[in-house]
Amino acid sequence: MTGKFEALSVETLPKRLGGTAALTGRIGRDISRWKVQEVGDGNLNLVFIVEGDQGAAVVKQALPYVRLVGDSWPLPLKRSFFEYHALTRQERRAPGSVPAIYHFDETQALIVMEYLAPPHIILRRALIDGRELPNIARDIGLFMARTLFRGSDLSMVTKERKADLALFADNVELCDITENLVFSDPYFDAKMNRHTSPQLDDLVAELRADRDLKVEAQRLKHLFAANAETLLHGDLHSGSIMVTDTETRMIDPEFAFYGPIAFDVGMLLANFWMAFFSQRGHEEKGSRDSMRAYLLGVTAETWATFRAEFAHLWRTERSGILYQKSLFEDQGDLLGSEQALDHVLHSIWTDLLGFAGIEVHRRILGLAHNADFETIADQDLRARCEAKALRFGRHIAVNRRQIHSIDEVNNLAALIEQEKSL
Amino acid sequence: MTGKFEALSVETLPKRLGGTAALTGRIGRDISRWKVQEVGDGNLNLVFIVEGDQGAAVVKQALPYVRLVGDSWPLPLKRSFFEYHALTRQERRAPGSVPAIYHFDETQALIVMEYLAPPHIILRRALIDGRELPNIARDIGLFMARTLFRGSDLSMVTKERKADLALFADNVELCDITENLVFSDPYFDAKMNRHTSPQLDDLVAELRADRDLKVEAQRLKHLFAANAETLLHGDLHSGSIMVTDTETRMIDPEFAFYGPIAFDVGMLLANFWMAFFSQRGHEEKGSRDSMRAYLLGVTAETWATFRAEFAHLWRTERSGILYQKSLFEDQGDLLGSEQALDHVLHSIWTDLLGFAGIEVHRRILGLAHNADFETIADQDLRARCEAKALRFGRHIAVNRRQIHSIDEVNNLAALIEQEKSL
Repeated sequence: MTGKFEALSVETLPKRLGGTAALTGRIGRDISRWKVQEVGDGNLNLVFIVEGDQGAAVVKQALPYVRLVGDSWPLPLKRSFFEYHALTRQERRAPGSVPAIYHFDETQALIVMEYLAPPHIILRRALIDGRELPNIARDIGLFMARTLFRGSDLSMVTKERKADLALFADNVELCDITENLVFSDPYFDAKMNRHTSPQLDDLVAELRADRDLKVEAQRLKHLFAANAETLLHGDLHSGSIMVTDTETRMIDPEFAFYGPIAFDVGMLLANFWMAFFSQRGHEEKGSRDSMRAYLLGVTAETWATFRAEFAHLWRTERSGILYQKSLFEDQGDLLGSEQALDHVLHSIWTDLLGFAGIEVHRRILGLAHNADFETIADQDLRARCEAKALRFGRHIAVNRRQIHSIDEVNNLAALIEQEKSL
Repeated sequence: MTGKFEALSVETLPKRLGGTAALTGRIGRDISRWKVQEVGDGNLNLVFIVEGDQGAAVVKQALPYVRLVGDSWPLPLKRSFFEYHALTRQERRAPGSVPAIYHFDETQALIVMEYLAPPHIILRRALIDGRELPNIARDIGLFMARTLFRGSDLSMVTKERKADLALFADNVELCDITENLVFSDPYFDAKMNRHTSPQLDDLVAELRADRDLKVEAQRLKHLFAANAETLLHGDLHSGSIMVTDTETRMIDPEFAFYGPIAFDVGMLLANFWMAFFSQRGHEEKGSRDSMRAYLLGVTAETWATFRAEFAHLWRTERSGILYQKSLFEDQGDLLGSEQALDHVLHSIWTDLLGFAGIEVHRRILGLAHNADFETIADQDLRARCEAKALRFGRHIAVNRRQIHSIDEVNNLAALIEQEKSL
């Protein structure tokens, strides 16, 4: 399949991909027996499940615009190129954590990849359903530590990192989405904003008049835009993770680019905290106390796993140009490298709280909302959940330099959640 | 002149460049009357002054190795490409601050540019001679504020900044020189190090065992390598500036790349502080008290000019994606943008002290020394000057978060300079 870009459809897909050995070899050559379903969640891309006699695969194709909005919001096909390259690097750095790639067609902006069959579901869906998955904290913590450490100058050959940085620097339009939708739009009356109204109107006005918050959000944007520290997933939330009770896979890294380590971690933890604050809206079938405790436990364990694995890699794989062993271990100064590690982890910690706070805000005030809150039908109840999350986000973003442990943050979340006056 | 790269010589230059209209149009077409001198200071490149009937020009050509060391240290010709592109951007962002460019030949790695005729001399030379130039602080402060602000996401269209970042990301080998020679080699027994010995041996051992200093140097290296904030000159010291009593021009930006704003500023100020500590070694013809006071004044005025111009550009040209007006001024929140400016300037200040301290160390302990100290013939006297500078550098690098003003730093310098026991 070559030539000019053409969007696939359920009808045309078998004929157009029937000659692709990487696909026919996996699912079967008889295209007359292929079953094709379109399952894209509708935001950006087309996603098909293709089943043949021998198996199934996923075909993901970018469109030259934002699917959710239409032609009026063009978006380059090249995001498929960045997704493909991010997936190959993530697989190398954290084997088994992403879907296997069978085929990539740059012109057609499509990736053929492993089908994560049921019982795989989107993590966000599982958390809304109140499922307590035992492995996610560990799996995601390891994924983040390994991809973020191994994609940085702590580990890579600098020449290769810089070539890769240049490659991903072209992912301008998707970074632009984050720059606007995450860091700025929520804090003024931007066109595409929406929020639960009128219930949240006063709080929204209060946050938009909050100078300390706005300045902090922009400082975080500055960090996001300038600090090309490692290859990020770039959109690591609970909607970008597929799970079963035992398995965890990260998907959809089309926002990948070189940015600050703390961004992926903060965005991910924010989504757990949002899940926590949304549970009150999902108690039709009984209390979610256990789920709330589980979710705070997940944030603590994710961060602990990240820290432990990052420290392990620091001690065993620190072969890049930063904090080089010739200055520390080789001089018999083991504690020098531990001191530097403390500084680096402290800085990731401080910044991730900022990114997390901002991520909570944009998911409630901006364009792209979360099903965690959106599926709460009772508007007043939803608004109460959202208001608590907004206040939590504001607190951790603005006070991030004075918060020392994940337990403090979780205690704060629990306090806000139980407070009647908020 | 095209084809395979070939180094110029005094003999071959007229014939090889005689057909270059950009040069012949300026200095005259009759190459038989051209006078060619090679004037390179011998570190990296060939530099020729070519005089004809109508005028003169400089021809600078890169060599495929470090000239100072020879074939054993290869260095890509492409540095000439980066120098050319940096010069064109600097001219646009700070008009009149760099030599005019007449011609660039990428294959031959050569730039034909304006000849800065006598009385232009290298600023470092002027300071060693004890000359008090009245304009340098203002000229350099403006140059830094304008190029660093206008090369960042505070001003540029992000898509263009990222394309430029990708272009300069390929300047790997020259960044590698800085990464090693500035941030690491001085702090362990690296092969190319040298220092005034045995006078400084004990102090060198002390600094190499100084854990806080080593960790700080590596944190600064992390910032240098990851924080792609703006297009830097990359090697902005008093040897990269040509002056007369009234004019100031920045030259030699072949180390240009996207890095932290504070790097250029810190490196530059460090060179003024080194000039200050070296004056004691140049008092054959009388006291340099006035020169010392002048130099501290220059650092204060350079920083004040930088701050004032940066703030001016912040208020008048802040058109990039960072700290956008829609969040502050447009909301009637003028003080929000001033609060953000304070944060940004504070962060530049804190980091520049770190970069300055490290720059002082590498010029006394590493490979590339400064004539300021090297021209002091009396080894004991030189070592005393160097020891004071080293102690000063250690103090400002390690304590940079607790130092609040340039006056504090200058008072510290004056105190160290006068202290008999140091």
